[in-house]
Amino acid sequence: MVLDAWRSKVSQFDMLLSELSDEQLGKEVAPGRNRGTYLLGHLTSLADSIFPLLGYEKSAPHLWKPFVQLPDRVDDDVPGAKALRQEWIKVRGALEERITTIGTEEWFRKHTAISAEDFEKEPHRNKLNVILSRVSHLDYHLGQLQFLKNR
Amino acid sequence: MVLDAWRSKVSQFDMLLSELSDEQLGKEVAPGRNRGTYLLGHLTSLADSIFPLLGYEKSAPHLWKPFVQLPDRVDDDVPGAKALRQEWIKVRGALEERITTIGTEEWFRKHTAISAEDFEKEPHRNKLNVILSRVSHLDYHLGQLQFLKNR
Repeated sequence: MVLDAWRSKVSQFDMLLSELSDEQLGKEVAPGRNRGTYLLGHLTSLADSIFPLLGYEKSAPHLWKPFVQLPDRVDDDVPGAKALRQEWIKVRGALEERITTIGTEEWFRKHTAISAEDFEKEPHRNKLNVILSRVSHLDYHLGQLQFLKNR
Repeated sequence: MVLDAWRSKVSQFDMLLSELSDEQLGKEVAPGRNRGTYLLGHLTSLADSIFPLLGYEKSAPHLWKPFVQLPDRVDDDVPGAKALRQEWIKVRGALEERITTIGTEEWFRKHTAISAEDFEKEPHRNKLNVILSRVSHLDYHLGQLQFLKNR
């Protein structure tokens, strides 16, 4: 159910990206708010941050600083819409490949950012829960990105 | 995990509502988009729509038409921010009461909007999945509602 929810949100995001031009992505989603390109980089980097939590290497670690640690417009030397679309495709594809190799039991084991001690007390902090929280996070920004339509 | 995610999003929404004045809620979340009050009514009615899917009566059925079936500003005779805050508290409280009475096995039984035949083919369309989809839907609009801060 959780993996299906992730795949369904990823498809919804793919569809939205296909409807938005690079020019639209360069605009702010609302006055004074993040630009579409920033949110695209942000969502790509947050999807990429799933890898280390599952025990694997990140696929696009260079996106973390400009799109997660720093707010929009602080770093001018960041990839544009075209490059970010490709990063997204790369990361979500690599993630899908990984996800399909993980077995049911493995999903309920602890993710890498929690100690064995804490996990004993909080067994819901498992690998599947990482995906669950990213589904919701993706939807949070999808609601904002769709304001770029008809702009 | 799914119920925790729901409760966590509900708390996040409660916090956001406590930070927004009635006047802020009366504004559009972005130019030409839904007003905060419409989204509050919409989220309340969508939370309320969980009841019949679990097999219970709705708690605020009068909100469905103006806040789900109709777009914002079509029906002028709708409750304002104050009344909608109370509807939200009522619905999310009643839902929490219900949720705690449902046992683990019951969550994996079919929800009421799917036939027994279809459920055999698609067993993920269970009661828990209704909550999962509402978590994500809540986050979708939370991302928009937070634009009302500092306005």
